[in-house]
Amino acid sequence: MVLKIIEQSHEILHIDPNINQMIEKAGRTCYKSEDKITGDSADKFVKMLIDRGHHAMIEFGDIIVKFVTSRDVTHEFVRHRLCSFAQESQRYVRYNNIEFIRPVWESDKTEKDVLAYSWWKHSMITAENHYKHLMAEGWTPQQARVVLPNSAKTEIVVKTNIREWRYIFQLRCSPKAYPQLRFLMLALLKELKEKVPVVFEDINYE
Amino acid sequence: MVLKIIEQSHEILHIDPNINQMIEKAGRTCYKSEDKITGDSADKFVKMLIDRGHHAMIEFGDIIVKFVTSRDVTHEFVRHRLCSFAQESQRYVRYNNIEFIRPVWESDKTEKDVLAYSWWKHSMITAENHYKHLMAEGWTPQQARVVLPNSAKTEIVVKTNIREWRYIFQLRCSPKAYPQLRFLMLALLKELKEKVPVVFEDINYE
Amino acid sequence: MVLKIIEQSHEILHIDPNINQMIEKAGRTCYKSEDKITGDSADKFVKMLIDRGHHAMIEFGDIIVKFVTSRDVTHEFVRHRLCSFAQESQRYVRYNNIEFIRPVWESDKTEKDVLAYSWWKHSMITAENHYKHLMAEGWTPQQARVVLPNSAKTEIVVKTNIREWRYIFQLRCSPKAYPQLRFLMLALLKELKEKVPVVFEDINYE
Amino acid sequence: MVLKIIEQSHEILHIDPNINQMIEKAGRTCYKSEDKITGDSADKFVKMLIDRGHHAMIEFGDIIVKFVTSRDVTHEFVRHRLCSFAQESQRYVRYNNIEFIRPVWESDKTEKDVLAYSWWKHSMITAENHYKHLMAEGWTPQQARVVLPNSAKTEIVVKTNIREWRYIFQLRCSPKAYPQLRFLMLALLKELKEKVPVVFEDINYE
Repeated sequence: MVLKIIEQSHEILHIDPNINQMIEKAGRTCYKSEDKITGDSADKFVKMLIDRGHHAMIEFGDIIVKFVTSRDVTHEFVRHRLCSFAQESQRYVRYNNIEFIRPVWESDKTEKDVLAYSWWKHSMITAENHYKHLMAEGWTPQQARVVLPNSAKTEIVVKTNIREWRYIFQLRCSPKAYPQLRFLMLALLKELKEKVPVVFEDINYE
Repeated sequence: MVLKIIEQSHEILHIDPNINQMIEKAGRTCYKSEDKITGDSADKFVKMLIDRGHHAMIEFGDIIVKFVTSRDVTHEFVRHRLCSFAQESQRYVRYNNIEFIRPVWESDKTEKDVLAYSWWKHSMITAENHYKHLMAEGWTPQQARVVLPNSAKTEIVVKTNIREWRYIFQLRCSPKAYPQLRFLMLALLKELKEKVPVVFEDINYE
Repeated sequence: MVLKIIEQSHEILHIDPNINQMIEKAGRTCYKSEDKITGDSADKFVKMLIDRGHHAMIEFGDIIVKFVTSRDVTHEFVRHRLCSFAQESQRYVRYNNIEFIRPVWESDKTEKDVLAYSWWKHSMITAENHYKHLMAEGWTPQQARVVLPNSAKTEIVVKTNIREWRYIFQLRCSPKAYPQLRFLMLALLKELKEKVPVVFEDINYE
Repeated sequence: MVLKIIEQSHEILHIDPNINQMIEKAGRTCYKSEDKITGDSADKFVKMLIDRGHHAMIEFGDIIVKFVTSRDVTHEFVRHRLCSFAQESQRYVRYNNIEFIRPVWESDKTEKDVLAYSWWKHSMITAENHYKHLMAEGWTPQQARVVLPNSAKTEIVVKTNIREWRYIFQLRCSPKAYPQLRFLMLALLKELKEKVPVVFEDINYE
């Protein structure tokens, strides 16, 4: 049996290429100023909405992201009520091999660091081993999974609108957030600031 | 002054052409059965999700619709908490002419019907007249609009996911629903059943 | 026919007398510090939660309020998704007399003010008159109500938690809010600051 | 080191003794039938609301419950968006001893059952041991907890309204639900059917 450790990661599954145009179209309905729409009016209009705090309008743009991360991260994340979630089910999936997510704070700087990480690895091997023994004794996947640790890999697809993504970044990129979740979100924020700068450029971290 | 009466209507602003593919992608994350995705597997998979009641998955498809209707209809509609709304603001728009929505029950079958509709038209003319007098005396748009009736035209852009649209149709297409709202939703349902049959074909009304 | 004009108002229907104790009980579950609960620890603990932004905890206290106000106010208010609402139904209530809400900006300072208010009163009388004519011609209450104006009186019972009430006050007590709604909320905030000071004392308006 | 295994359980922290009276008060605002309130009209009125599907009204009654259960159960439960949650934090609590929740399907009927349960116990002991080693090497509680399994005990206070509790019971008491969660909810439903029969008596399971 080989311990399979993977890095947490994200993949953007969907951003509407006309996201700002759609927000503008919705927003101008409020003011009946649709006649002011031009080929390049959207970015400026959306920026104005954000600056003025008319955030209901940026709900008209959605982003869908798939995360590969650990179960403790998703237990926190699914508390965001305004998201739609599709998560890998430990109840239905029958694992031949369990994958584990490398803790982002793991390091080899000191002897204690190395020792701690070695304990963690040992713990993962043992948990996988126990899972397999329980399956062998007749427990079903949803039963055997009770021995799986927080570090067990899970996949989750998250869909929500830009207003909520902004709130999530403000909360989860903070230095007070759980580091494993924080680094996941910082990496996503970095990519989104490049892809759709107008709606995220005022959120700055690190 | 000419009374401007218009028919309520809807316009679908956005349906993702790959809506079932996105739902399938999300749904198969739960079971880790992504390897079963083929060129034509999406429709069947989405139908299975709906039949089994795994409705969280159909949250991964959104539809955006613009309605032109009356203020009493939108006062009911905005109670649907899971929608995003952008509504024409009577506080910010300065009307030169007010438009009114023809009541769907108006008819010329009997003398009483004709008389009632004539009273309604008279009421609309008077309200518009009062609005203009108030503006002339210095009230702002958000103040003068307090004399505008339920039949005043409003525009609203609604974005929500398929799970919520299905719930809205079940509630608002019922014979117990407010007729003005009901006919608006029946017309939309009819169009959606043609455009994205898989996710609406089991909802039948009239 | 006598025009019935009333003042908008609120009535607090329910505040749990042990609201801070319940919040403390919930909040200390997170830290497993239940042993630190004493006879007077609640207020201080709740204040700390608010200061630190741990606002999920103040969702454990609810306040239920009944408002008597105008329909334009409730059309805005019901957009607050996290509230529960019970509203007087213009579809089901058969009115013998319509009541109207005095606009908060009405005044007798100038001749124009007096003239405007007189137009408003005239408009209310006419609308009530039209409602009755439509009922006489056979329209049902839900049909005849389409001529009723935004100033028509409505009653609404609102239940939500303290976290959401705080958000509502921050939004609706702002000078940018619709004045009719703003004054309604300022009056409620004033009373709540006296009744449950700990959870509202940091919100200041006027 | 002694393995500490406990049974999952629930404790009702709050039910308003006048829950049906409050629902009636709210509900009758819709119909303006407050004059029909008598000393014993509430139960009948609330039953009528439920039968007719006017479920928005039963949002006016809340029930707060504290559960002691396992982390896999809460990971599912916190997906219910309309609840307020206060959960024991593995990030902030520094455990001297970890407690584990007995799996409800554990039994001693067959040799395989006994063997499986013995593997589970062994797995819990090992996980606790690893947690302590990681703490000893300098990992903080939020870091060391990554080795803790799904069976680790957690406490969660849940507040929501009767409409949502009914939905939760319909979903989670089903034979298709995760057994550990299902038995937790069946026990609560049984107690609530005794304490507030009117609002739960039509929900039957087992």
